[in-house]
Amino acid sequence: MIKADIKKAIYCSGTLTAKCNIEIKTNNSMNVNGKDYRTIWMEGSSVFMIDQNRLPFEFVIFKSENYLTTCKAITDMTTRGAGAIGAAAGFAMAQALMSKPEKTNDLFIEQAKKDIQKTRPTARNLFYAVELVFEAGKNGAEEAFRMAQQIAEKDIDDSRAIGFYGNDLIEDSSSILTHCNAGWLAFVDYGTALSPIYTACNSGKKVFVWADETRPRSQGARLTAWELYNAGIPHRIVPDSAGAWLMAQKKINLIITGADRIAANGDTANKIGTFEKAVLANYFKIPFYIAAPTSTFDLNCSTGNEIIIEQRNPEEVLYQTGPDEKGIIHRIRVASPGSTAINPAFDVTPASLITGIISEKGIIKADQESIRKVTSKN
Amino acid sequence: MIKADIKKAIYCSGTLTAKCNIEIKTNNSMNVNGKDYRTIWMEGSSVFMIDQNRLPFEFVIFKSENYLTTCKAITDMTTRGAGAIGAAAGFAMAQALMSKPEKTNDLFIEQAKKDIQKTRPTARNLFYAVELVFEAGKNGAEEAFRMAQQIAEKDIDDSRAIGFYGNDLIEDSSSILTHCNAGWLAFVDYGTALSPIYTACNSGKKVFVWADETRPRSQGARLTAWELYNAGIPHRIVPDSAGAWLMAQKKINLIITGADRIAANGDTANKIGTFEKAVLANYFKIPFYIAAPTSTFDLNCSTGNEIIIEQRNPEEVLYQTGPDEKGIIHRIRVASPGSTAINPAFDVTPASLITGIISEKGIIKADQESIRKVTSKN
Repeated sequence: MIKADIKKAIYCSGTLTAKCNIEIKTNNSMNVNGKDYRTIWMEGSSVFMIDQNRLPFEFVIFKSENYLTTCKAITDMTTRGAGAIGAAAGFAMAQALMSKPEKTNDLFIEQAKKDIQKTRPTARNLFYAVELVFEAGKNGAEEAFRMAQQIAEKDIDDSRAIGFYGNDLIEDSSSILTHCNAGWLAFVDYGTALSPIYTACNSGKKVFVWADETRPRSQGARLTAWELYNAGIPHRIVPDSAGAWLMAQKKINLIITGADRIAANGDTANKIGTFEKAVLANYFKIPFYIAAPTSTFDLNCSTGNEIIIEQRNPEEVLYQTGPDEKGIIHRIRVASPGSTAINPAFDVTPASLITGIISEKGIIKADQESIRKVTSKN
Repeated sequence: MIKADIKKAIYCSGTLTAKCNIEIKTNNSMNVNGKDYRTIWMEGSSVFMIDQNRLPFEFVIFKSENYLTTCKAITDMTTRGAGAIGAAAGFAMAQALMSKPEKTNDLFIEQAKKDIQKTRPTARNLFYAVELVFEAGKNGAEEAFRMAQQIAEKDIDDSRAIGFYGNDLIEDSSSILTHCNAGWLAFVDYGTALSPIYTACNSGKKVFVWADETRPRSQGARLTAWELYNAGIPHRIVPDSAGAWLMAQKKINLIITGADRIAANGDTANKIGTFEKAVLANYFKIPFYIAAPTSTFDLNCSTGNEIIIEQRNPEEVLYQTGPDEKGIIHRIRVASPGSTAINPAFDVTPASLITGIISEKGIIKADQESIRKVTSKN
């Protein structure tokens, strides 16, 4: 799918809630082999998505014809990342409403809503999107479809605005470290942590990116590296433990990561290892920024202590999957057979270690007052 | 090979240089499937070593009949780790001297010396051992053999003394983090960072060990985990980036790592990632110790800035090797095909972040004065 030309598109701050006011002059959307893509999109009653389980070794578009198939694609991580999951859930709800036979009663829709909500129980965007599309559906399937599209567009607008604001932090000839993947693939397009980098590169700045490997699922080595390669941005994969060495060599000017949830006081949950980089940034006096839309703020969590950290299957640490030189995929053991591992999926970086949060409404401090202000305008 | 019972052995502080004075009461040497082993040993003119390239998936003893085969075993990392390499080099030199035909002139021996020195050009212990055995060989092959054995015994004595002193730092029911492998396998026996843990466990203390995975070569997940499993010590493998999370949860009481080289001011080169753990330990106020024999001190380096960091092949980061479920070994790509990586082998932890150094002569501060004192007694 080739997207419309957005080189002169108008940025709409909160399509769902607010007025347009920023002009985005550059096109730094996802580009694969010279073609523009979104991570996920809907045409008619079909949902299309980049199959992230097959990246970076194969680039395949997965097509889902009905809401149950879209549910399965969320569960098995064919699509993943906060923004992409939200869009997928909205599209799935729309698919259910659009497929509703004339005589099917509301039980079908209620069941579909539950099915979608079950796919990834902890993803906040998912519930938000399902609810909005479900409500819109009360005015007909067409309204549901429109709302689902609007949620996806809002995700793109937010990501693009984060790029716009974050670009101000990036000096020419910078070297930037990022952790995990918060780029195109984690959102509908542009991303959060990588969006300022794409914007900076498009505006003519020279940027070098250090992509943390991000064990155990290696989103940095597999997805961020893949994105940067496709965007033509110079980069290197960095073993997770080489950060201090890089910083001591003065090879990192700035750190930007994404966020999975931000508490009311600015404490930020993100991929395991983010906290380590923040401690190092503090030691080496390097600016450390979180890039996330304001929808990531969870005002029900007063501090990071209230955020429960998901413990994932230790096998993600003990085994690795990938192709041999002939392209045949193998799952191999990479740890001693008698031992097991811990596998916390996230950690919580204290607000005191965060230089600022790049949101779609501008860059704010990671403190209660700033977060209250920026969210009260929603 | 079953070692002699050393349950009541006498610790000889510096067999090569000093007098016995400490009684070691416990046997915490390498134990595999109920049998005692050394990492490397010599019988007659043959050198035997645990094949570390095949661990942790196969336990195989490699036998080398001549010095050239032993050289190859050092080069291809059949044996690895500071102490083990030193012992291997000494044994290789002895093999050369023992194989010398009556009528062969000194050219043969000179060539052998050069061959051994070429195997791992940066390993300091190697040159030290080769020189000692070469000199001893001037009094005959028997003296060379005796000196090579003495070097291996000294390595064991030092490791055991490090265990004796380090044990004092370990309280009952401690949780200890270690990085890379500085256990049995890196030395002739006992190890350095793990030796205090083995001593503590043998003295009846309950100890839990967190073993950093240690990407890219995964010495923690492959070798340290293997050792701890064989020693029956409870442990878990930890993704390199989960350290801050563990420390924030107050799940780590103490950190001990080994060292590859220690500068005159206490700055310490060790496996990449050690520096990160030291910065975290400082942030969380957790004691951070280096365990290493005094032979690791390099007084020719005034500070860590003079230590050159070896950059290894990026393929170690981009590929992983291990068995599938049928035991067939595969080498798979674990990173995006278009990207490459950095792979610094070591980093240098500033002395200011090191709580102390556990040496075979006791625990000292990581400063110039303490290092000068402890080395001047050599």
